[in-house]
Amino acid sequence: MATITVRNGVNVDQLVGTIGAVQGNADIAEFTFRAKSAWETGGRNRGEIKEFEHAGATTADRPAAFELMGDEPPVLLGTNAGPNAVELVLQALAFCYAVGFVYNASAKGYDIEELRYEVEGDLDLHRFLGLGGPRAGFSQIRAKGWVRSSNATAAELEDLCQYVQDTSPVRDILAAPVPVQTDLVVLD
Amino acid sequence: MATITVRNGVNVDQLVGTIGAVQGNADIAEFTFRAKSAWETGGRNRGEIKEFEHAGATTADRPAAFELMGDEPPVLLGTNAGPNAVELVLQALAFCYAVGFVYNASAKGYDIEELRYEVEGDLDLHRFLGLGGPRAGFSQIRAKGWVRSSNATAAELEDLCQYVQDTSPVRDILAAPVPVQTDLVVLD
Repeated sequence: MATITVRNGVNVDQLVGTIGAVQGNADIAEFTFRAKSAWETGGRNRGEIKEFEHAGATTADRPAAFELMGDEPPVLLGTNAGPNAVELVLQALAFCYAVGFVYNASAKGYDIEELRYEVEGDLDLHRFLGLGGPRAGFSQIRAKGWVRSSNATAAELEDLCQYVQDTSPVRDILAAPVPVQTDLVVLD
Repeated sequence: MATITVRNGVNVDQLVGTIGAVQGNADIAEFTFRAKSAWETGGRNRGEIKEFEHAGATTADRPAAFELMGDEPPVLLGTNAGPNAVELVLQALAFCYAVGFVYNASAKGYDIEELRYEVEGDLDLHRFLGLGGPRAGFSQIRAKGWVRSSNATAAELEDLCQYVQDTSPVRDILAAPVPVQTDLVVLD
């Protein structure tokens, strides 16, 4: 009887199988992810995440869309209906680091008992307000993780932290430039 | 009796006042935003966004934290408890563009009737899976907006779209490199 290896909630057999499948057919590694938004009022927008392309086909992997509200706090003219856009970027880095850490730890046989992140970013609003000055986005992002494992050494966990930084999609998106094409359709 | 100018749900008097306040005291433009995450199992993490620093002080602007679930779809070894990290980055760009467009449109006197965005990004999973190859993050992001205004011309809306790109915090974070410092604490 075949047994499935699950560690830290990760199906390690599926992980190894995915790596093998990508080695056999590079197209399996190709994804196009998507998000939509519809403006409601002021700084408030309703976001929706559902479909993505995988290996050239649209997935039916999700029965329903995830809905997210975006808004600004009152000091930024919003009504606090949701986090703002730059906060979501920080949240994305925390999630990406955690997934990378846990998936790779699972492949290495490390049992993770606890993993938390706090991420912060410094932003100067001058440019957004049309006043010139420094760059519009974060001048610096700082991430801090706390990890507890029952069977990995501190050195192994520190090595893994570095490996995760080197292979993290969101860290790469932040630390290296991504070409962004923007088009607008004016409706009658 | 003073009247408050509200256009597209934006308090334009407050917006103009904020610009004036920043011109009088540059510290008012300084923010540090934050996000936290706690790993649950597999690719699933619970995120939390609440506090931020403004002009050197922690805000009490939000009575409660926003909670977000992050997860992967089954094809990426998750259980679809939430969107994944790179999808959140795309959502952040959509929200940022919308806020920038509506705030600036309001200052210019444009009435916005509809504003939607769709954002997509191409990602190759080789590097995340430890197989080398192209960069870990998006190779390209494409954003498309649809806008309807009752009183702005197509040319005015297209100019505004360019201005928003030039001043968007999230676009800047994506299109230009941000230094990311990452530290790990190994708990006993």
